[in-house]
Amino acid sequence: MAAETAPDIPAGDPKHAVRATRTAGRKIRSVLLDAASRLFRERGLSGTSIADIAAGADAFPSQITYYFRTKEALFVEAACRDMLYLARATEQAALRAGTPRDYTRALVESVTASDAVAFFAEALTLTRRRQDLAPLVERTIERLHAEGLRAYASKIERHGWRSLREPDVTSRRFWAVAIGIMVEGYAMGRSSEALCAEMLRVLGEQATPASDAARLRLVGEAATQSRPEDQS
Amino acid sequence: MAAETAPDIPAGDPKHAVRATRTAGRKIRSVLLDAASRLFRERGLSGTSIADIAAGADAFPSQITYYFRTKEALFVEAACRDMLYLARATEQAALRAGTPRDYTRALVESVTASDAVAFFAEALTLTRRRQDLAPLVERTIERLHAEGLRAYASKIERHGWRSLREPDVTSRRFWAVAIGIMVEGYAMGRSSEALCAEMLRVLGEQATPASDAARLRLVGEAATQSRPEDQS
Repeated sequence: MAAETAPDIPAGDPKHAVRATRTAGRKIRSVLLDAASRLFRERGLSGTSIADIAAGADAFPSQITYYFRTKEALFVEAACRDMLYLARATEQAALRAGTPRDYTRALVESVTASDAVAFFAEALTLTRRRQDLAPLVERTIERLHAEGLRAYASKIERHGWRSLREPDVTSRRFWAVAIGIMVEGYAMGRSSEALCAEMLRVLGEQATPASDAARLRLVGEAATQSRPEDQS
Repeated sequence: MAAETAPDIPAGDPKHAVRATRTAGRKIRSVLLDAASRLFRERGLSGTSIADIAAGADAFPSQITYYFRTKEALFVEAACRDMLYLARATEQAALRAGTPRDYTRALVESVTASDAVAFFAEALTLTRRRQDLAPLVERTIERLHAEGLRAYASKIERHGWRSLREPDVTSRRFWAVAIGIMVEGYAMGRSSEALCAEMLRVLGEQATPASDAARLRLVGEAATQSRPEDQS
C-alpha cells in the first residue's frame, strides 16, 4: 500500500501550479532515468548507489527517493523503459527488409547490438524477489508482446509472407529466445557478433516468402503458375 | 590465478592422508552446496549470508570461504550443480515418452516444475559482472548442451522420429527458451502450470513421429505403404 502514498516533499519543492509541477516532474524523472540507465548498464545494481545516480544526474539523492522510492524500483523502471525503446528501434531497423530472412536478421542484429535485453533480464531476476515491482514488469512484457505482434502481423501481411507459426507465438518466441540467449551469452562474455549468430541459429526461420508460399501451394494443390512476389 | 591456490588451512584441519582428506573434503563441499542451494533458492543471493549457510550446514563460516572463497562463487557453483541435476532428471522423466509430443511435454513439465532454471539464470546474471566465475558457467552450459544433444539424438534415433531442426540446434533452443520463459515467468510470479503452458506454446513441435515421417516420404517419393511405428 505504501507504494501509492506520496513520500515527504523534497527540500526546495517549487510548489508551482499543478500543471507546471507535473511537467517539471516528468522532466526530472526522465533525467534521473537517463543517468540511472547509464550507470546500471555499466556497473549493475550492486555496483551503483543512489548517490552515484544523483551525482550523474546533477540532482539530490532525495529527488530519487521522492520519484522512485528505492534503488531497486528505479532499476526496474529504467530497464523496462530501455526495453521498450529497444523494441521500437528494432522494429524500425527491420522496416525495409524485403524477405523474411532479411527481416529476422535485421531484428536480431538490432537486439544483440545493445545490452538492453540483458539489463531487462537483470530487472526480471530482481523482480522475482521483489513482487511489489511485478506490475510494471508485467505491463512492459504485455506491451512488448502486443507491439511485437502488431509489427510482425503488419509486416507479413504487407509482403504476403506465410508465418510458420501463429503470429502471436512468433513474437513471444522471439523475446523468450532473446532473453535466454542474452542471459547465457553475457555470462560467458560473448561478443555481439557471437550473440547474433547464436540467436539466428536458435530462432531459425519465422516465415516463408510469398514466392515460397506460392510454391508450396503449387505442390499441394497443383495450382496455376502465379507468383505474388513481394508486393510492397 | 588465485582461484587455483589453496587458501589458509581452516582451524582444526585433521591432516589425514591425502586420500582421506580428499574424500572428507568432497563430503563437506557437498553438504555445504546442499545447504547453500536450499537457502539461495528460497531467499536469493542478497537474502542469504555465509553465516546462514554455515548454520544450515552445521559448519563454520571459515569452511565456506576455504572451499568456495566467496558467497558469489558458492552461489554460482550451487546453481550450476542444480542445473545439471535438473537436466538429468528431465531426461529421465522423458525416457518413456512414445511420441514426439509426449516427449516434449515430459521435458517441459519436468523443467517448469522446479526453480532450478530460475536459480541458474540468477547465477548467469551474476556472472555477467563477475567474469572470474565465467569458466564454471561455460563448462556447465557446454555439458548441458552436449548431454541434451546426446539424449535427444538417441531418442529420435531409437523411435525413428524426424527432427524438425538439426538436433544440436534443438537442444540449444530448448534451454534458451527455458531460460527466457522462466526469467519472464518468475518475475511475474507465474505458477508452474502457466510456465509449462507458455513454454510448450513457444517451443512448438520439435520432431514428427515415425508415421508422419513415413507419410511425408510417401507424398514426396510415392514410396510403398510401410509405417515404421514406434520401434522401442
